[in-house]
Amino acid sequence: MGARGIAAGALIWSSRKRCFCSIHANAGSNASATAVEDAEIRPAKKPVDEAVTPRSQDFSRWYLDVIDAAELADYGPVRGTMVIRPYGYAIWEFVQSWLDAKFKETGHSNMYFPQLIPYSFIEKETSHVEGFSPELALVTIGGGKELEEKLVVRPTSETMVNHMFAQWIRSHRDLPLLVNQWANVTRWERRTKPFIRTLEFLWQEGHTAHATAQEAEEEALRMIEVYRTFAVEQAAMPVIVGRKSRLERFAGAICTYTIEAMMGDRRALQAGTSHNLGQNFARAFETQFTDVNGDLQHIWQTSWGMSTRMVGGIIMTHGDDKGLMLPPKLAPIQVVIVPIWKKGDEQEAVLQAAHKVESLVRAAGIRVKLDTFDQRTPGWKFNHWELKGVPIRIEIGPKDVANNSVVVARRDVPGKAGKEFGIFMDRSVLIDHLRAKLDDIQSSLLARATEFRDSNIVDVNSYEELKAVIAEGKWARGPWCGSDDNETTVKEETGATIRCFPFDQPEAKTCIFTNKTAHEVAIFAKSY
Amino acid sequence: MGARGIAAGALIWSSRKRCFCSIHANAGSNASATAVEDAEIRPAKKPVDEAVTPRSQDFSRWYLDVIDAAELADYGPVRGTMVIRPYGYAIWEFVQSWLDAKFKETGHSNMYFPQLIPYSFIEKETSHVEGFSPELALVTIGGGKELEEKLVVRPTSETMVNHMFAQWIRSHRDLPLLVNQWANVTRWERRTKPFIRTLEFLWQEGHTAHATAQEAEEEALRMIEVYRTFAVEQAAMPVIVGRKSRLERFAGAICTYTIEAMMGDRRALQAGTSHNLGQNFARAFETQFTDVNGDLQHIWQTSWGMSTRMVGGIIMTHGDDKGLMLPPKLAPIQVVIVPIWKKGDEQEAVLQAAHKVESLVRAAGIRVKLDTFDQRTPGWKFNHWELKGVPIRIEIGPKDVANNSVVVARRDVPGKAGKEFGIFMDRSVLIDHLRAKLDDIQSSLLARATEFRDSNIVDVNSYEELKAVIAEGKWARGPWCGSDDNETTVKEETGATIRCFPFDQPEAKTCIFTNKTAHEVAIFAKSY
Repeated sequence: MGARGIAAGALIWSSRKRCFCSIHANAGSNASATAVEDAEIRPAKKPVDEAVTPRSQDFSRWYLDVIDAAELADYGPVRGTMVIRPYGYAIWEFVQSWLDAKFKETGHSNMYFPQLIPYSFIEKETSHVEGFSPELALVTIGGGKELEEKLVVRPTSETMVNHMFAQWIRSHRDLPLLVNQWANVTRWERRTKPFIRTLEFLWQEGHTAHATAQEAEEEALRMIEVYRTFAVEQAAMPVIVGRKSRLERFAGAICTYTIEAMMGDRRALQAGTSHNLGQNFARAFETQFTDVNGDLQHIWQTSWGMSTRMVGGIIMTHGDDKGLMLPPKLAPIQVVIVPIWKKGDEQEAVLQAAHKVESLVRAAGIRVKLDTFDQRTPGWKFNHWELKGVPIRIEIGPKDVANNSVVVARRDVPGKAGKEFGIFMDRSVLIDHLRAKLDDIQSSLLARATEFRDSNIVDVNSYEELKAVIAEGKWARGPWCGSDDNETTVKEETGATIRCFPFDQPEAKTCIFTNKTAHEVAIFAKSY
Repeated sequence: MGARGIAAGALIWSSRKRCFCSIHANAGSNASATAVEDAEIRPAKKPVDEAVTPRSQDFSRWYLDVIDAAELADYGPVRGTMVIRPYGYAIWEFVQSWLDAKFKETGHSNMYFPQLIPYSFIEKETSHVEGFSPELALVTIGGGKELEEKLVVRPTSETMVNHMFAQWIRSHRDLPLLVNQWANVTRWERRTKPFIRTLEFLWQEGHTAHATAQEAEEEALRMIEVYRTFAVEQAAMPVIVGRKSRLERFAGAICTYTIEAMMGDRRALQAGTSHNLGQNFARAFETQFTDVNGDLQHIWQTSWGMSTRMVGGIIMTHGDDKGLMLPPKLAPIQVVIVPIWKKGDEQEAVLQAAHKVESLVRAAGIRVKLDTFDQRTPGWKFNHWELKGVPIRIEIGPKDVANNSVVVARRDVPGKAGKEFGIFMDRSVLIDHLRAKLDDIQSSLLARATEFRDSNIVDVNSYEELKAVIAEGKWARGPWCGSDDNETTVKEETGATIRCFPFDQPEAKTCIFTNKTAHEVAIFAKSY
C-alpha cells in the first residue's frame, strides 16, 4: 500500500476502493459464508487459474493475489489497515490456541491492559520514545472535548505495564509476575503489506517481572524457544534463532532474541521476538521491590511477542504458483472431498459415498470439507482448493464407488506423482492413510523449506564476498565484530541488515569488516 | 470514577494514583503471580475481613472493594479505563470459550475488522451518528502528522462492516454472511464503573447479512437466545428476555432484543443485546445484492454483542458480605484445599494427604488449588478463598488424615450448615461428591437469584403504583402503550426506564399511563 506512493497519514479509502476493486473483480467475490469448513463456494467471475500471478513471475504481486483470491484478508478503509477474513483468521486462531496453551503451561496468566496510554508515559524511557515516537497514533479528542494530555493508541505496552506493576509489586514475594495479553496494537508505518506490516495488527505480548537478572534472562530465552518450537513444529518454518545487534534490538531492551525465517523470495522475516529489558523500564517507572534482605531494588523484566505477521510468513514460506500451501497442523481445512459425476444415476451413488467418507474423516477429528457445489467442474474445484492450500484432496468418481475406494492427492506434490489410487474406503485403512499423509506433508514442507534456506545461506570471509552474496539475494553469514557505524555502512551499501547472531555458532574467525578477531558470526540479509 | 466529579475528557491518572492507592493499601497487594490455579498467596497488609465493606452496608462500595480485594481488576491511568487482572480475566475466558463454541455451532466464523474508522462513516446512518457522536474518541495525529480526516476509535463496527460487506456481497449466493469478532471498543463515557461501564471494554460483536427480513429477524432472535442460555445455564443469572422500547434500542436498529438481569441492589443490568438492523445501514452504505430474480436489493442485517460487563453482572448477582461468589461453571478455581496442621510431625502427613487429594481432583478435570502457604492461619485462608468466591473448600487436618477422610464446605451456605464431615478420601467417593456438590451449588445460585428477582418484580396497574414500586427500589411490570414522550416523563419523574417488553407476556390490560388498551406489559426499573 505504501508502495503505491501514498503519503503517510493520508486516508486512501476512496482511491483504495477504486484501486483494489479491480484486483477483487479478477478474483471473484466468493465471500465466506459460515464457519470455515461449512462455507459455500460461489461462482467466481474469472477462472481461478487466472486469479493469481505466478510466484516465479512476481513474488510481491503473487503474495497480494494469493491473499485476495484465497480470501485471507482485504484492505481496510484507512491506509495500511487490514481486514482479516474468516479463512485467514482461522489460521491465526490455530496460532493463538497453540501459543496460549504453551504460555499457560509455562506459568503465565492472561490479563488485559487498556490501550490508551498517556503521552508522558512514552517519554519516560529514553530509547523507547526514540524508537516509537515517529510511529504513534494520538487521540486528542474524547467525548467532544480536546484532551488535556494526548493519548497514545498502544504501539506496545511496556510503559502501561510498568505503571501498573509499580503499584502491584512490593516484595520479592510478589515475584516472578508472569502475564500475557492478546491485543491489537497500532503503529503508524509508512510502508505496509497485509499481515507483514500493517497500521494495526493483532498479537500477544508477554510481560514478566523478576527478582534477578538471571531469572529475566532465563525467561527471555525460554519464550524465544517457545516461538522457535511453534515455528518449526506447527508452521513448518525452519527459523534461525539468535540475538539481535544493538541497532536492531527493541527500543528499551538490553537484549532482543529473535527467530528469523527465510521467505520464498529469500528475504528475511523476523517472526517473533523476546526481549530482556533489564531494569530500563523499572528505573524509568520506579518499579521496585524489597528483596529477601530488606533492600529496595528495581525489578528485572522481559517482554515477548508474536503477531498476525506469522500468517504472512506461512504464506511466503510455503506457497507456490498455484497459491497457498498450508502446513496440515494449521490448515483450517485439512482434507477436501471433490465428488466427480455426470448428471443422472451416477450422481446419487457418488454423493452418497462422498458423504460417507466425509463422516468417517470428520469422526476421526480431521478437519474436512465436502464440496458438493454443482455449478463448477471438478477441474475448477481442484484449482480452487489448491489455491486455498488444502493439504489433501480426496476424489471420488463412479469407478471409485464401484471399487469401494478413493483417490488421494497431495497439495505439495503436483500432478500424478502426488496421487494415490485405490485407497480402500474403510475406516481404519482410510483414516490411517490420511493421518500418515498429513504427517508426511507436514514434515515434507519443513524439509523443503529447510533445504531452500540452507542452500541460500552462504558463508562469507570478506566484505566483498558479503556484497556479492547479498546482491544475489541470498543470506550471508560471516564473522563480525564491527561497530554500530560499521553495521550502518553495510546497510547503506548493500541494503542488508544483521538479522541475528545465531545461537548455533561455527568457529569464530576474522571479522569481514574490521579484520580484527571476531568472536561471533552474524547473518546478514535483506528483510521485510 | 465519574462519581468522583472528574470532568469528562480529563486525565486523572496522577490524582487517581493517590485516590486509589489508599483503597489498594487496605486490601493488600497480593499480585497474582502465575496461571490462576498456581498463583502463590502473599501476605496482605490488613486482615482479609477488613478488606471488603459489607454488601448490606454500602452496595456500591462493596462492589469496588470486592473487585480490588479479589484482584479482579484495577484502574488504568486514563480516567474510566480498567486493567483486567488475571483472576478477573480468567472468568472472561470462560465466557469467551462458551460463546465462541456456540457461535461456531450456529454457523458463524470469526474475523477481524480494523478499529480505526473514517469519521465520515459514522455520519452516514442518521440515528447511529446521533447515538454515538457524543461518545467518540478521535485520532487526529498519525506518524507525527495531522490527519486529513479524523479517525474514530471503534465504538462498535456496523459502519466498518457495511463498508466491507458492500465490497464482498454481490449476489444472493453470497448470503447469508455470518461473522463475529472478539475486540476492544472505546466509548467516552462520563460515569464509569469497573466492568459495568468503562471507557474501553472487551466484547464480541456478531454481524450478519441476509437476503430477507425474516431471516434477519430469525437470526436476531437466535442470538438473544444464545445469550439467554449462557446467562442462565453458565452464569446462573435468571435474565428476562425481551424487546427494547424505541427510545432504548440501539442507534441504527429497527429492533433491539435484550437480556435484563437484576443485580443484588435490584438495579437492572442490560447483559447482552441482539439487534435487527433492518436495511438501515445497507441503505446508508449501498450494501446491495442481486436476488434470485435478478433484481437489486439492500441486504437485511443483524448485530449482537456481549461484553466484559458480564463479569460485573456475575459479581453483583451472586456476591455477599464475604465477597465474591462464583458459579462453579465459570469459577477459575472450583475447589480449594486448605491443609490444617500444627508444625512438627503432623505437617508432613497432612501435606502428603492434601497433595494426594489435589492430584485426584485435578485428574478428574476439576479446577483445584492447594494452598500450602505457611505464613497464614487456616482461618485467614478460609476468609481469603471465600472472598475470592471459590465454590468449594476442602479442609484436611490430622484427624481427617487418621480417618482417611476430608471436610467439604460450600461457599454458598455459611458456617457449619454448609460443612460435611468425614467424606471418604477415595477417588470415586470424593469425586462423585464434589461433582454433585458443584452441580448443586450451580443450581442453588440460580434458584436463589430467581427467587430474589421474582420477589422484587411487582405487577402494577396504575402510574401511582409504579412510582411507589420504583421508589422502593423494585422493578415494576405493567401494561404500556405510551408514546416516547410518555416514556421520557416516567424516566424524569421516577428515574426508571423501560428495561424491556418481556417475551413472556401476561394478558394485556389498560395502560398504566394512557388508560388506553395496552397490548403488552413493560418492565420498568432503575438501571446501570
